[in-house]
Amino acid sequence: MKTDIQIAQEAQMLPIKEVAANAGITEDDLEFYGKYKAKLSEDFWDKIKDNPDGKLVLVTAINPTPAGEGKTTTSVGLGQAFAKLDKKAIIALREPSLGPCFGIKGGAAGGGYAQVVPMEDLNLHFTGDFHAITSANNLLAAMLDNHIQQGNALQIDPRQVVWKRCVDMNDRVLRNIVVGLGNKMDGMVREDHFVITVASEIMAILCLADDLQDLKRRLGRIIVAYNFNGDPVTADDLQATGAMTALLKDAIKPNLIQTLEHTPALVHGGPFANIAHGCNSVRATKMALKMADIAITEAGFGADLGAEKFMDIKCRKAGLKPDAVVLVATVRALKYNGGVAKADLAEENLDALKKGIVNLEKHIENIQKFGVPVIVTLNSFITDTDAENEYIRQFCEERGCEFALSEVWEKGGEGGIALAEKVLNTLENKESHFHTLYEDELSLKEKIEKISKEIYGADGVVYEPAAQKQITKIEAMGFGEFPICMAKNQYSFSDDAKKLGRPENFDIHIREVYVDAGAGFVVALTGSVMTMPGLPKVPAANNIDVSEDGKITGLF
Amino acid sequence: MKTDIQIAQEAQMLPIKEVAANAGITEDDLEFYGKYKAKLSEDFWDKIKDNPDGKLVLVTAINPTPAGEGKTTTSVGLGQAFAKLDKKAIIALREPSLGPCFGIKGGAAGGGYAQVVPMEDLNLHFTGDFHAITSANNLLAAMLDNHIQQGNALQIDPRQVVWKRCVDMNDRVLRNIVVGLGNKMDGMVREDHFVITVASEIMAILCLADDLQDLKRRLGRIIVAYNFNGDPVTADDLQATGAMTALLKDAIKPNLIQTLEHTPALVHGGPFANIAHGCNSVRATKMALKMADIAITEAGFGADLGAEKFMDIKCRKAGLKPDAVVLVATVRALKYNGGVAKADLAEENLDALKKGIVNLEKHIENIQKFGVPVIVTLNSFITDTDAENEYIRQFCEERGCEFALSEVWEKGGEGGIALAEKVLNTLENKESHFHTLYEDELSLKEKIEKISKEIYGADGVVYEPAAQKQITKIEAMGFGEFPICMAKNQYSFSDDAKKLGRPENFDIHIREVYVDAGAGFVVALTGSVMTMPGLPKVPAANNIDVSEDGKITGLF
Repeated sequence: MKTDIQIAQEAQMLPIKEVAANAGITEDDLEFYGKYKAKLSEDFWDKIKDNPDGKLVLVTAINPTPAGEGKTTTSVGLGQAFAKLDKKAIIALREPSLGPCFGIKGGAAGGGYAQVVPMEDLNLHFTGDFHAITSANNLLAAMLDNHIQQGNALQIDPRQVVWKRCVDMNDRVLRNIVVGLGNKMDGMVREDHFVITVASEIMAILCLADDLQDLKRRLGRIIVAYNFNGDPVTADDLQATGAMTALLKDAIKPNLIQTLEHTPALVHGGPFANIAHGCNSVRATKMALKMADIAITEAGFGADLGAEKFMDIKCRKAGLKPDAVVLVATVRALKYNGGVAKADLAEENLDALKKGIVNLEKHIENIQKFGVPVIVTLNSFITDTDAENEYIRQFCEERGCEFALSEVWEKGGEGGIALAEKVLNTLENKESHFHTLYEDELSLKEKIEKISKEIYGADGVVYEPAAQKQITKIEAMGFGEFPICMAKNQYSFSDDAKKLGRPENFDIHIREVYVDAGAGFVVALTGSVMTMPGLPKVPAANNIDVSEDGKITGLF
Repeated sequence: MKTDIQIAQEAQMLPIKEVAANAGITEDDLEFYGKYKAKLSEDFWDKIKDNPDGKLVLVTAINPTPAGEGKTTTSVGLGQAFAKLDKKAIIALREPSLGPCFGIKGGAAGGGYAQVVPMEDLNLHFTGDFHAITSANNLLAAMLDNHIQQGNALQIDPRQVVWKRCVDMNDRVLRNIVVGLGNKMDGMVREDHFVITVASEIMAILCLADDLQDLKRRLGRIIVAYNFNGDPVTADDLQATGAMTALLKDAIKPNLIQTLEHTPALVHGGPFANIAHGCNSVRATKMALKMADIAITEAGFGADLGAEKFMDIKCRKAGLKPDAVVLVATVRALKYNGGVAKADLAEENLDALKKGIVNLEKHIENIQKFGVPVIVTLNSFITDTDAENEYIRQFCEERGCEFALSEVWEKGGEGGIALAEKVLNTLENKESHFHTLYEDELSLKEKIEKISKEIYGADGVVYEPAAQKQITKIEAMGFGEFPICMAKNQYSFSDDAKKLGRPENFDIHIREVYVDAGAGFVVALTGSVMTMPGLPKVPAANNIDVSEDGKITGLF
């Protein structure tokens, strides 16, 4: 069997200018990055901004398991399938982070015959967007510490610096560090922390900004520290905003690549959904809506994280209205949720399936709470049995969802036609009554509780004393109307990664709360979710190589 | 008067494919990065590698002063001037570092009407080469600390980790840090240090590698730490080589941009010359030699650093042979070396000039020691007087150097014709008898002493006990035949930045010596030279901005 990278490398890509031409984009509106990648110019947006919007389809999934679900694979395959049906569809995905690519996760370009290409470029530096974010983030950090060093006119309290350096790498030893050691010229000693770039507020800002000027305003509002009076100090106060904006002037332009079947794909922005808001850029999604009849986008991890934040943060902020949600599951993952060990997933096990399907059930219920029609799809594996598929189909249909098998991994667009037809059917016949889960006016605690109870199924929320104090302060600062960005592990509805299925009788534990004033949300950290991953015992990087003829191997 | 960025932004650039076509490069051999930047493909090298080599001209300078010299300006202007004379010339420069661009130094794309463009792109992320180097550097660091964390099978001594993380930012608080704080899952606590990316060994490796496979071999040889037995641990031992190579697969391809007058310029690689070897990539220089009759390259800072390393490291390793050296000075800088305060440089002062010209004299003598003909050029300022110019002309001619005024800053290529003609005259009539300063076979101390005495004019060399021990160890490890990369401040021939002119009666103090086994040289740190700069009280970043219409301002 061919690996993803083999399939990707054997693909006959079209020059990106041809893919663009097929989508109505002229060469003048492209900024090429090699032959197969391009950024879309600001002028292009001006040309299309008055077009009517297409339909917006969100692809999300059940909670991820080691068995694999295939959300990106499904998104890509669905886009390919629409093309087979002569529908004008554009895919809008997130860019992968370099860190996990060398860790345990591997790349993120879809899989099998439903991939976006060039996959090596996408998984490595792509068009440099994340590097630009890292640079802007670390410029701000350097200017902050330099300000303290050079007299500290703003009276920044070194114990209350909240801005963190970042790196797009899984580097656990940078989680907690002490900087500024050495002598007087080497800065003020203080405790510091690195986060992974995708957890940087700047990543969220880039993804939520309407345009370059909105980006600049948001960057200026970033709170980097508090002064000795406890008042916030911002990027504007440090005069860092202009230079950061200059660093991001190209990063804010969406990137165009193609699927294995030459469907256009906008791949732009990439916050993680466990520690950030998990959606691609507003700019790319809006462009996709103006360019096509159907825009397919995805949100990270399970629907409890990605879809909730897509609805409550991205759609709320950008005025978007999803028309349908595709919820991806696999028979294997549902059995895993039902307690089957990874080694035994190949065997038919209806009892385990019935036990594990409660995870899917809860996600269906949750999406329905937002008023959006749901289509469930099973990303097929060769070991799935008819009985298992049939059980799930019936389960979904009883809950008012369309259902389709998806074989895009094996067959590309052809394998997604059944799903595409169900999606079309939903778009044509079921109206979306989209609304957010909560109103801006609720208090921060009411919002956290609403998400915890209604989406996660928790009994209640327990706040650590520090978190309680932080909430009081954030509301006093006037940020109480912001939506909540929950930081939670992706494996469980609860904040305990081991509780699979549809856990009950649990509380959500809020350990820290902070405001991302530039992004425009309040982050609530639950359990032990980490903002800087580590590498595993045998990192994926060990197996990545470049062959004599310059081909990359071992990237998956 | 227009600023550099205004001139650059008003320039009518040609699409880079046209610049390339004029240089005989077809579109197939280009990988575009926007409309005005491109990388040259591997295939292109295969096409030209059997061409005869053109002449190699190195542009270097006297010791830098706050008065400014204009080495890059001269290199660019000279290239433009050759084009005016219908000579086929290509410029091969270094890429600027992002860090200093936000600090005190500003950008580095030449100046006035002798610039390479697009200058904003060049000074910001350009084609991402430095970000790729940062990523590869920090992947290796993460894999190293992860190895220690995950059982430390290689028995790495955490007290003897020599690999440092890097960031392309002037960030003084990262000079000395402690990493790995927190709990057991957050790594092993140890002291660590960040360097600026241009000081990373990987920058040197990229610039010295013949091709991708040579790059890979060199990366594998990097010594990252010593084990508890004192034996070296390499990147190969950590199985990091393949993934690092994958990260650098595009970065090793030279970048093509243009001058304000559409002369092709290869801008690739950029180690600092004070803390690293200070030359652009071997790959770009070799390409330039194959593409043109005259290849113009520069080396960083003054000739004591940049030119010496160009000759003794780059030319030695790559088998290059410079045909002529252009030595750039300014009347103002020579007067500054003669003790005139910066505020008074506009006034004619022949006495100070006579006093300061010894700096130029020593650089001329030094280059003549390498057997290469010298052309001195004065980068004109409006305040220079005829008497001053005439004095310098005579001084140079008495020492067997050609001499020319250069007015490229004000007039572009037209202002460089006098210089270009002198260079042509030298290339046609004076033979280069290039040889390195020292042979591989000398001991490390003999090499350090030869550079210190013959190039710097020192009486002798004083080694700190640690440096002495390191030299013994490095020779015992079998690296005694490597050339030396001196790390020294750029302002003085001595290791005391305040001793201008042609200092005498001083020793060079070697404080630390380490081997860059991948780059293939031994670094000797003198005085207090820093591998991580800091930001000044008012960073250049404070004034950088993006206007309503998306134009960058304040970058210089």
